[in-house]
Amino acid sequence: MDDTSRRGVLQGMGTGMLTALAGRGLAAVPAPAPGRKLGYAIVGLGGYATRQIMPQFRDCDHSRLVALVSGTPGKLTRYAAEYDIPASNLYSYATFDRIRDNPSIDIVYIVLPNSMHAEYSIRAAQAGKHVLCEKPMAVSVAECEAMIAASRKANRKLMIGYRSRFEPYNQLAIQLARGGHVGPTRIITAEHGFNAQPGQWRLDRAMSGGGSLMDIGIYSLNAVRYLSGEEPVSVTAVESTDRRDPRFRTVEDRIDFMLRFPSGIVANCVSSYSSNHNAYRVNGTDGFIAMEPATPYEGQRMMIRKDGVTAPRVLPKPPKTQFVGQLDHLAICVMTDQQPIVAGEEGLADLHVMEAIYRSAREGRAVTLRS
Amino acid sequence: MDDTSRRGVLQGMGTGMLTALAGRGLAAVPAPAPGRKLGYAIVGLGGYATRQIMPQFRDCDHSRLVALVSGTPGKLTRYAAEYDIPASNLYSYATFDRIRDNPSIDIVYIVLPNSMHAEYSIRAAQAGKHVLCEKPMAVSVAECEAMIAASRKANRKLMIGYRSRFEPYNQLAIQLARGGHVGPTRIITAEHGFNAQPGQWRLDRAMSGGGSLMDIGIYSLNAVRYLSGEEPVSVTAVESTDRRDPRFRTVEDRIDFMLRFPSGIVANCVSSYSSNHNAYRVNGTDGFIAMEPATPYEGQRMMIRKDGVTAPRVLPKPPKTQFVGQLDHLAICVMTDQQPIVAGEEGLADLHVMEAIYRSAREGRAVTLRS
Repeated sequence: MDDTSRRGVLQGMGTGMLTALAGRGLAAVPAPAPGRKLGYAIVGLGGYATRQIMPQFRDCDHSRLVALVSGTPGKLTRYAAEYDIPASNLYSYATFDRIRDNPSIDIVYIVLPNSMHAEYSIRAAQAGKHVLCEKPMAVSVAECEAMIAASRKANRKLMIGYRSRFEPYNQLAIQLARGGHVGPTRIITAEHGFNAQPGQWRLDRAMSGGGSLMDIGIYSLNAVRYLSGEEPVSVTAVESTDRRDPRFRTVEDRIDFMLRFPSGIVANCVSSYSSNHNAYRVNGTDGFIAMEPATPYEGQRMMIRKDGVTAPRVLPKPPKTQFVGQLDHLAICVMTDQQPIVAGEEGLADLHVMEAIYRSAREGRAVTLRS
Repeated sequence: MDDTSRRGVLQGMGTGMLTALAGRGLAAVPAPAPGRKLGYAIVGLGGYATRQIMPQFRDCDHSRLVALVSGTPGKLTRYAAEYDIPASNLYSYATFDRIRDNPSIDIVYIVLPNSMHAEYSIRAAQAGKHVLCEKPMAVSVAECEAMIAASRKANRKLMIGYRSRFEPYNQLAIQLARGGHVGPTRIITAEHGFNAQPGQWRLDRAMSGGGSLMDIGIYSLNAVRYLSGEEPVSVTAVESTDRRDPRFRTVEDRIDFMLRFPSGIVANCVSSYSSNHNAYRVNGTDGFIAMEPATPYEGQRMMIRKDGVTAPRVLPKPPKTQFVGQLDHLAICVMTDQQPIVAGEEGLADLHVMEAIYRSAREGRAVTLRS
């Protein structure tokens, strides 16, 4: 792990872990003023925002929910009441840009369909706000680059919602894999998929920008990048979609891909909208680090094989969830002027590879990426 | 499963299973005369032959060890004494063709380095003997075709040593996967590999014909073919070999590949000479059938996920090993004039795909196979 990413991991940890690690000679980052909380506006009140994200603020040390943005007045009323948010902090998409005049909003969290990520991230930056944007960052490399440019121009932070980077098992897997705990990594397998239900926006390319890769295969891709700590140099992909299935009229079902990394590591990845997968395994010369499930909201399980013995590795229940860690990380980065560990550049890197995956599947050939 | 392959699976089962299945309306095959045993000659007295194969004859119902072929006189003396084989039934490679004049030899089992499989299989057929040949069947499609032609011309059986087809967990996995136990199959992952030790013939291309794919990756390939029951229509492969590693001067280390099948099934396969893998998983729309280890000499373990529950599936210890099942299967096929379930055509089918895997990795493109 290099200094930048080590600092990043530390920022995702609680204060207790920071203190513990400081005793092992690792430098801590500047601490924010205790008790200070930045204000978040949530943009898009779908299931992920309302069921997974919004309840987390009560456990945050540095973040609070202060504003809501939705096109559905009934949702604004309901969640404003539930979270005690004043009417002056409720916005529609038509009035969104007025957040500029609301100093209680520090950070805008974009939880919209993929095709709207770029537009609302850029408008938020232009309104002077920091941005946390859900993954995939956008539906193209060009959009990602425009988002990064907008946040730079506004001198505001931009972070992508890669929540697993704030989850202790995934953090440990990164540390063990990159530290050679089971020898140098040779092959990483990563599988993510679920049975897509008809009628969701994710099955409409105009909203999603693509199929399983955009929504769930991105977890396989992001995992092999964070577990290897490298950027792929070549991409090879195979798509299999039954276009007679009404779910898959405009987006792909399965798109599996292999990546080759500069050190020689090969990654073998599954992305599926018609079967359930949630696992990865780092295979080193001396054993493996396996996670299954690897990236759920909770309940990660790790098995390690080393010296011929396979055994579970159990971590204590963390005091804060990965969602809280993610929300507070950006708040801390804003308060201490640090770059988030999963900044816009991280989302851009995934989109670079994803565009190559689609191209490889379409053209039936390996696509070389700049190393 | 079609009738041909069902009959084939039955031939790999013990009599008890045949009786049980007959009660379920499945036809049994002609039974050989009880107590009749065909004579095997083992060609090549390496570790696999002497440690795994030869001790199995004591448990066979229809096979016995009657002759040995080796270029090392000391091995012939040692194993002739151990297995009570008369001097008249010991051969060198120079005297090999004289097996023609030895009526006690019915079947010749070729356990030589890969590059010698074709020559000795063909010479055995020309000597009027049936042949069991280790996998890979040979080092090229052309050699496989010559072997099949020679056995046909001699009107003799030719079988390839795909031992997992005689192992109950693998037989059950085939039955469950093809029967849709976890819904239609969508994605199969299969991983096989080990850390190759320097100095073995398998690392010398002149003897092995290739690296991990020839030796261990073939298990991943063969498994996805028998689990799907289909032949792949396209092949995409990525190789990663550190040529500075003295083990890999002439053969590949890792070569991962993806196959697409006519029904839309995608297979994602690992083949490695620098990390340990032995697993496969059939992912259907409603769950999975997982085997790990999948293809060891013993100790297979199966997990099934269905209706949201993951549970082990434990079979009773079989009365006979997969090695015994394999030896007796060919003997029974000879006695009853049946085609072995893993005839030369099965080995040829793997070599067809393996040549496409090498070509795909070399040319960086998907290779289409005739369907």
